[in-house]
Amino acid sequence: MTENAVVSRRGKVLTMDTINPSVKKVEYAVRGPIVQRALQIEKELKEGAKKPFTEVIKANIGDAHAMGQRPITFFRQVLALCSYPALLDDPSFPEDAKSRARRILQFCGGGSIGAYSASQGIDCVRQDVARYIELRDGGVASNPDNIYLSTGASDGIVTILKLLVSGEGETRTGVMIPIPQYPLYSAALAELEAVQIHYFLNEERCWSLDVSELRRSLEAARQHCCPRAICIINPGNPTGQVQSRQCIEDVIRFAAEEGLFLMADEVYQDNVYAEGCQFHSFKKVLFEMGPEYYNTVELVSFHSTSKCYMGECGFRGGYMEVINMDPAVVAQLTKLLSVRLCPPVPGQALMDLVVNPPQPGEPSYTTFLMERNMTLNAMAEKARLTEEILNTVPGIICNPVQGAMYSFPKIAIPKRAVQEAKEKGVAPDMLYCMNLLDETGICLVPGSGFGQQDGTYHFRMTILPPTEKLKILLDKVKDFHQRFTQQYS
Amino acid sequence: MTENAVVSRRGKVLTMDTINPSVKKVEYAVRGPIVQRALQIEKELKEGAKKPFTEVIKANIGDAHAMGQRPITFFRQVLALCSYPALLDDPSFPEDAKSRARRILQFCGGGSIGAYSASQGIDCVRQDVARYIELRDGGVASNPDNIYLSTGASDGIVTILKLLVSGEGETRTGVMIPIPQYPLYSAALAELEAVQIHYFLNEERCWSLDVSELRRSLEAARQHCCPRAICIINPGNPTGQVQSRQCIEDVIRFAAEEGLFLMADEVYQDNVYAEGCQFHSFKKVLFEMGPEYYNTVELVSFHSTSKCYMGECGFRGGYMEVINMDPAVVAQLTKLLSVRLCPPVPGQALMDLVVNPPQPGEPSYTTFLMERNMTLNAMAEKARLTEEILNTVPGIICNPVQGAMYSFPKIAIPKRAVQEAKEKGVAPDMLYCMNLLDETGICLVPGSGFGQQDGTYHFRMTILPPTEKLKILLDKVKDFHQRFTQQYS
Repeated sequence: MTENAVVSRRGKVLTMDTINPSVKKVEYAVRGPIVQRALQIEKELKEGAKKPFTEVIKANIGDAHAMGQRPITFFRQVLALCSYPALLDDPSFPEDAKSRARRILQFCGGGSIGAYSASQGIDCVRQDVARYIELRDGGVASNPDNIYLSTGASDGIVTILKLLVSGEGETRTGVMIPIPQYPLYSAALAELEAVQIHYFLNEERCWSLDVSELRRSLEAARQHCCPRAICIINPGNPTGQVQSRQCIEDVIRFAAEEGLFLMADEVYQDNVYAEGCQFHSFKKVLFEMGPEYYNTVELVSFHSTSKCYMGECGFRGGYMEVINMDPAVVAQLTKLLSVRLCPPVPGQALMDLVVNPPQPGEPSYTTFLMERNMTLNAMAEKARLTEEILNTVPGIICNPVQGAMYSFPKIAIPKRAVQEAKEKGVAPDMLYCMNLLDETGICLVPGSGFGQQDGTYHFRMTILPPTEKLKILLDKVKDFHQRFTQQYS
Repeated sequence: MTENAVVSRRGKVLTMDTINPSVKKVEYAVRGPIVQRALQIEKELKEGAKKPFTEVIKANIGDAHAMGQRPITFFRQVLALCSYPALLDDPSFPEDAKSRARRILQFCGGGSIGAYSASQGIDCVRQDVARYIELRDGGVASNPDNIYLSTGASDGIVTILKLLVSGEGETRTGVMIPIPQYPLYSAALAELEAVQIHYFLNEERCWSLDVSELRRSLEAARQHCCPRAICIINPGNPTGQVQSRQCIEDVIRFAAEEGLFLMADEVYQDNVYAEGCQFHSFKKVLFEMGPEYYNTVELVSFHSTSKCYMGECGFRGGYMEVINMDPAVVAQLTKLLSVRLCPPVPGQALMDLVVNPPQPGEPSYTTFLMERNMTLNAMAEKARLTEEILNTVPGIICNPVQGAMYSFPKIAIPKRAVQEAKEKGVAPDMLYCMNLLDETGICLVPGSGFGQQDGTYHFRMTILPPTEKLKILLDKVKDFHQRFTQQYS
């Protein structure tokens, strides 16, 4: 046999037959087929194609800067100083920005953000995070040793899930996740081949979490897997609800009684808009419940630079706080993190600024406060606007957007459209969103990508576009919905 | 039963008994127990402890900036401009830095590096990477669609390995890795529960790779697993060898004949020092071998911002080029990457600068060239120095450091020391390195963390400390080795 024959005899090594089967099961709607199509349409527009619209509006993802939100000046000044320390001699930079930059650089190897940090994160950043948590939680102690910097919150969440997965068949780890959920959870659990245990949020009661539903879901899951953890997203993504203190206490009691590891995704902790709503951290509530809880319940909470008023997604900054983890497991966690060396240092620096922003009396304080409040006030206004306009559309029911950055309205889809979707092999709300995109250039994510009660349909839409653009967008959705309903009636 | 009793009845959820068993198997010597001990000693020194040395020198990890290497001015100027675009009006920044920053920002959502990028990476960065590869490889075409930005090279390597792992028992995926290897490979394969297939580099022939050894290792592995991929590190880590063009051709032919997916870790591509040695990319050699190879062999090659003359580890920048991957698998890869949203954008910007540095005629060109050459020349000098001094020590044999950033000398360990290590349950070269650390403050990584022929012992030492410090360090190692040998003889 000649050499060439040897080579050509073989097909590809890596094919759909030989690929990791758990990878095939992963789905992530936020950047799924709808976004592929949106990118395609953008390209066609650039090449001069005629469409009934002139631009694609991506309301599919919580990407504040892409929607025109300006970064916080102070944060970016410090990042510039850290990147190019020669600027420390530039008198046009404020002193508080310089002192923050000097402090961060002092804790970096060789005084450079180009050096690796410790895998757990830069010492001073972990110290500042701990102080921030103490202040946020009314004095409940936080230990820098329990803080782990991460590459966005996603990285921390996947790492903790990875630790939790073991067993086979009926002993395989199950993890409770809300439905609707942010699909990072389902994607990570699919990849890890863990069992997804769904608990449903109560749409009729403003997407609230009922402990009775947790119990139902847990009991059912115990028939076929070993439930080990429960994930909570508060404020909710995609649902926008803000949990009451009572609800959080109930969840903690439930986790304690049922022996569940608690994961609290709190990346939207500054995004609370609705009157009477307030962010309560799981950590704080846990400690208020007394030593029989705070000495035992294993809790990890996650935060990020990507959301809130910062919207600095591109930096991939984040942290997690780990409470009551078995010391031997902590050693395993530390080891696992060390393989990936360290989270991006610019993201760590940014996380430091988020938890240690300008203080009253410092030169950047007034501007910082103004910028932050402007952003958060505009979001609150847009949250209200979104609910209001969507609820004027017959066939759309939208819960108040109490917090986070999304509305997740229920949409009525005519039977004929459901039928057509079935024939095409797509979810009915995917058909809806695809038509919306093709007709209006608006890119939303179908509810089926987050999970929903059978027979109900939703979409997720960010509230992030500038107010005027958001109004146009909502009006277009309104028109489209009416057209779609007529078309299929 | 009272509530408190319910809570206290249970132990921890996540323990060494319930933790993911594949996590337990992960090992990563570069940041392992020796580094924990080094950090401990540093802390003790800070607290005033008296030691026979005043500082810990971490020669365990390729962290150039931490060892005093200065960043490239142009790179940091552009990063500062991208972070804080108000600086674009500052006349003290050179025009070429401004035009690079403007171009990168133009391709970012909302003109901000705080926006998410496409999961595959920013368009213009992928274009620039493709052009860089074409130039590097003498005109062999590179398609930006085949370029994926990553969070350092590690992230890309782990992602590709993840795709490759499937099957159970005798059909479980095996991956060929060199011994000695960079322990990211063994750690990732352990976590993925893939079979590690070891092929040994030939220490007697300057750590060269023999295809006959590849055949031996593959045949043996075929008895118990399904070999699917081969990993090559060139220039070598920890071994510092630079592969000849002939060797690369042989490896490609071997991969083609045996149906193996080829992974080329080429992060040290600018780090070649030895006379007569030259970096040849696997991509270029593949294309020179003709269409029967370049149309069939599946190849992914990896690069990074962390090594070469940049040493920008903290930014976690990197890319991979994917050749001949099945389109259906490419779709799975794209989906998998989308779950983690995007690589850090500052790292992507930095990767762009590495592949598109100042050109002749541009204002920053002269300084850039000088800075780059100074760093690379100093490394070449230190590579030579390291080999020379280590080889003056009886009982230490050091191959030429042809490339990369490490020496990996063979050390003779007296039988009594081997015996003592056995009694303590540690590897003999771990005992050696721990003693070295305690006596001199020098932190090296034992060869056992990288793999080595049974009965041989090594350590890995970076060549990165400044020349004068490196000389002191090498002298201390020399003294220690003689003391250690006497002590245990």
